[in-house]
Amino acid sequence: MEYENTLIKERLSNLRAAMEKQGIDYYLIPSSDFHNSEYSADFFKVREYFCGFDGSNGTLLVSSREAGMWTDGRYFIQADNQMKGTGVTLFKMQEPGVPTIQEYLLENMKEGETLGFDGRVVSTSFGEELEKELSKNRVNFRIDKDLAEDIWTDRPSLPCHDIYVLSDELCGQSFEEKLCAVRQKMKEYGTCLYILSKLDDIMWLTNLRGDDVECNPVALAYAVISEDSFILFVQKEEVTEDVRNYCQKKGITLREYDELVAFIEGFEIAGDILCDKRNTNYLTYKALSEKADSAGVKLSNRKDPTESLKAVKNETELRNIREVYIRDSARLTEFIYWVKSNVGKIPMTEYSAAMKLDSMRAELPGFIELSFPTISAYNANAAMAHYEATKDNCAEVKNEGLLLVDSGGTYLGGTTDVTRTIVVGKLSDEIKRHYTLTVVGMLRLSKANFLEGCTGRNLDILARGPLWNIGIDYKHGTGHGIGYILNVHEGPQNIRWRFTPGQSEAALVPGMIVSDEPGVYIEGSHGIRIENILEVQKGEEGEYGQFLHFAHLTWVPIDLEAIDPGYMDQSDIKALNDYHRDVYEKISPYITDKDVLEWLKKATTQL
Amino acid sequence: MEYENTLIKERLSNLRAAMEKQGIDYYLIPSSDFHNSEYSADFFKVREYFCGFDGSNGTLLVSSREAGMWTDGRYFIQADNQMKGTGVTLFKMQEPGVPTIQEYLLENMKEGETLGFDGRVVSTSFGEELEKELSKNRVNFRIDKDLAEDIWTDRPSLPCHDIYVLSDELCGQSFEEKLCAVRQKMKEYGTCLYILSKLDDIMWLTNLRGDDVECNPVALAYAVISEDSFILFVQKEEVTEDVRNYCQKKGITLREYDELVAFIEGFEIAGDILCDKRNTNYLTYKALSEKADSAGVKLSNRKDPTESLKAVKNETELRNIREVYIRDSARLTEFIYWVKSNVGKIPMTEYSAAMKLDSMRAELPGFIELSFPTISAYNANAAMAHYEATKDNCAEVKNEGLLLVDSGGTYLGGTTDVTRTIVVGKLSDEIKRHYTLTVVGMLRLSKANFLEGCTGRNLDILARGPLWNIGIDYKHGTGHGIGYILNVHEGPQNIRWRFTPGQSEAALVPGMIVSDEPGVYIEGSHGIRIENILEVQKGEEGEYGQFLHFAHLTWVPIDLEAIDPGYMDQSDIKALNDYHRDVYEKISPYITDKDVLEWLKKATTQL
Repeated sequence: MEYENTLIKERLSNLRAAMEKQGIDYYLIPSSDFHNSEYSADFFKVREYFCGFDGSNGTLLVSSREAGMWTDGRYFIQADNQMKGTGVTLFKMQEPGVPTIQEYLLENMKEGETLGFDGRVVSTSFGEELEKELSKNRVNFRIDKDLAEDIWTDRPSLPCHDIYVLSDELCGQSFEEKLCAVRQKMKEYGTCLYILSKLDDIMWLTNLRGDDVECNPVALAYAVISEDSFILFVQKEEVTEDVRNYCQKKGITLREYDELVAFIEGFEIAGDILCDKRNTNYLTYKALSEKADSAGVKLSNRKDPTESLKAVKNETELRNIREVYIRDSARLTEFIYWVKSNVGKIPMTEYSAAMKLDSMRAELPGFIELSFPTISAYNANAAMAHYEATKDNCAEVKNEGLLLVDSGGTYLGGTTDVTRTIVVGKLSDEIKRHYTLTVVGMLRLSKANFLEGCTGRNLDILARGPLWNIGIDYKHGTGHGIGYILNVHEGPQNIRWRFTPGQSEAALVPGMIVSDEPGVYIEGSHGIRIENILEVQKGEEGEYGQFLHFAHLTWVPIDLEAIDPGYMDQSDIKALNDYHRDVYEKISPYITDKDVLEWLKKATTQL
Repeated sequence: MEYENTLIKERLSNLRAAMEKQGIDYYLIPSSDFHNSEYSADFFKVREYFCGFDGSNGTLLVSSREAGMWTDGRYFIQADNQMKGTGVTLFKMQEPGVPTIQEYLLENMKEGETLGFDGRVVSTSFGEELEKELSKNRVNFRIDKDLAEDIWTDRPSLPCHDIYVLSDELCGQSFEEKLCAVRQKMKEYGTCLYILSKLDDIMWLTNLRGDDVECNPVALAYAVISEDSFILFVQKEEVTEDVRNYCQKKGITLREYDELVAFIEGFEIAGDILCDKRNTNYLTYKALSEKADSAGVKLSNRKDPTESLKAVKNETELRNIREVYIRDSARLTEFIYWVKSNVGKIPMTEYSAAMKLDSMRAELPGFIELSFPTISAYNANAAMAHYEATKDNCAEVKNEGLLLVDSGGTYLGGTTDVTRTIVVGKLSDEIKRHYTLTVVGMLRLSKANFLEGCTGRNLDILARGPLWNIGIDYKHGTGHGIGYILNVHEGPQNIRWRFTPGQSEAALVPGMIVSDEPGVYIEGSHGIRIENILEVQKGEEGEYGQFLHFAHLTWVPIDLEAIDPGYMDQSDIKALNDYHRDVYEKISPYITDKDVLEWLKKATTQL
């Protein structure tokens, strides 16, 4: 007899009853929160609740007759296991013959039927696509219902943690100054109302921080900016006395987090509205769109101007970031010493090593939280793109091969991100070749001198080229922007090579921070990634224009045990030697243990 | 008393009389031919006729009250001299406070006035811009009048030279095969009529060639392609017996060159029309646009599909190109030997050296014509972007410094383009540094290994980076496509770095040909450019995708007298040594003179 998951079946039957009551024929459940954050809190795990699958990507679709769950190749096996006995069909995305959700709906939905979803967890682009596709079938939409509300009785509550204020001294720029720059952009775009939904942009603009998204020091919030008002929508329970005083002083009007749509509906609007579709959920966008239509104004879809303003760090931010990276680098260096001197001697797993590093970081002054869950992956595990070691499911680290550690912290003073691949034992020549060329790529990009106007697409080949030359590619970007006491991933700049027609590229600008992280991933064998963070700085200015270059922010030794200088040019060797000289100079003052210092001296030996 | 140019004044007065007769208040005279070719024949030099200025860029605007001529910074002095006493005002483009033509017209033209020009010599983009801008003033347009027709009595006739047929064997693909591919694209785009105006595309498609544009082996022509007909519009006098037979056999209908617009007006159209705005003149585009409107079909503006098809050379073309480049390289090498062994001993000027090279090339089998006027520039002259040595105005080449020679030929077998900068005497260390890093850039790009999907923007920094690293830029692209027995400049691929929002970039594809020509230009001192032509070839294909790389087509020694290996990495030295080894191997069989051979041996010495 086949196993039956009665719990899930009962939940689905409750859902179908609720659907019938609301006149909804198909109900769609994605995985995102209201702001398309990188991490979704437990409150948002509705899809998991109704089908059992807890991977990071998956969309559930339920009708009276069928339930289907769409996920990608990373999760086929896991989804299959977790959904056993639930009666939910697994739709393997990108597999031949498997319909997309749109295709499935187009095939199955009949004229007059209703598709329902919570428009707050659906992106505007997906919502518009559904609307456009299904208009052929004359389907109705119901986008304001979160059906889990009444069914999921023990649902975790919406994340709700105290907001706190960062001082203007720490931020280098006051809320008023930033708001003035944003209003300038609104004016440039000919708009008089701006709806901002992106959490890190709201935090940057207000100099506030929160704790509602894992590893992102942000509060759930929306902001509405007009020429003479600034309204912040947050949960009342998150507003401390301090925050309330700050807001009053700064002229920030506070409103309840869930009142945005009602507010939009009631607002008197005299001119065009600005919002960035990419960052606005479908429910909000539809409300704005209807408002604009009824008021006879335009809804202007443009990139959030806060994104570019936030990306260019001011002098205070840069000064603090440089300092924080040195301290963070010293701590990671101590960890590397700990790994190398203890491996094979004490019990060590990927997980325990990560815990050790996390606890070391937590002791640093101003530590707020990790900037993302530490990746600790040993040998072949490091070749898997989305590998995650857990306490119960992780490899033992033995004295052979490599341990890849990608980690970072958010401190009062900056957000860090760094990857080192640590030699813990014997390596093959092939691995040394891969390791050396990864380092060569990282260093070549860091040494680039380039004219203002260059984007990441111009530079990517400097990091990737040494690996392309031996027929190897890493299937990820070379670099991403990084926030200041904010998210570890931010735009608009990046370092990638692929051309996407119609997509705009952000030029690199002095004050931007970008990662430089080439890698090699050989399935079943090993994974290598070396990641330094770079700051864009001004160089010479002359008849050819303004030259720019990078400065390292990360100061952690590159493991010389994996370097074969035979694969390097003289200029690469010089770059590595220069870097190691600076590493010692920068971090040795922050290392007190004599053994570590002695080891660091050797680890930064000139080749 | 001020000098008066009565000749020009009389011509302008005749023009004004003709304008009055036609009811034209402002008459615009640009510099282009009907196809926006790189070179305009004397027939098209109407602007020169009416104002005396003969530079390559200039637009004349005449009204009853004033005449103005717009040109760019290269020509301010020349235009000032040549227009002395004509009463024509010089408008210095891009200078502060100087209006553009559009701004001038907007400022001066009144409601109901008429702007006239010959719509065949105006680009569609400029025509549309004028129309859009001046619609604010409610201005009339008259775009079908070439007023020079009746005034310029001794006007040179429209270029009219015999067309000839290239064999299918030489082209590697028959007209029918190419037409089939083009019709496939028309179908893909949902169009049933395609108007092609680009001369080299028409030549490529028909396997015909002509001689109506300087250095471009093309005939003045238009082509109209439907699902079951192919109409070629050419001057009857150009059609030889041979061409007539060929066209009859191939199903090509011949019509008179100047009947295109009348043909469009009379054509019965059943579906959408395809044309590429960039390559279609305004008169043709307007006719097409009106036709589409009246027939209720769409005028679909897309890149000429012939452009991409033409850019990817077939195996026959590649085989012939490789062979032709070796012969052309051997000849240039003999020339370099001649320069180096004769400089300081016989009278030599930039011009006489160019003549010598041109005559040497002309002796090669299958020589048709130069692919562009040879650039021969000595020392400081080589730093000027548009320097042109003439018999009466050129520098003597002495035994000191550098002679830059950029040249090429079109042969039955391919079109070449190559630049070498030749050491003719003592060089400073600075010049050697610039020379060496230019060579390093050329070699690094030529050694690139890259994934399919890369465009020139991904690769440009490989050539430009070594110069950027010392704060120097060259203000031109690194590379352009090159035709097969056709124009020396063609698209869609190129190698450049600047990002232009909205512009599409062409990925490099196996079989494309592209130049690799970094340079250094120091005003008043020296100019260096080294240009090799590269062929895109397939490399490894595996889990990361299809890798591509380049192969050299040019085999001419790099002047070792200007190379300082101190500025090179080992891998650069190896690349140069490998290249020189191959140069000797490839071209020595084509060099008969023992002295040259002996010198070549030394010139390709391994470092």
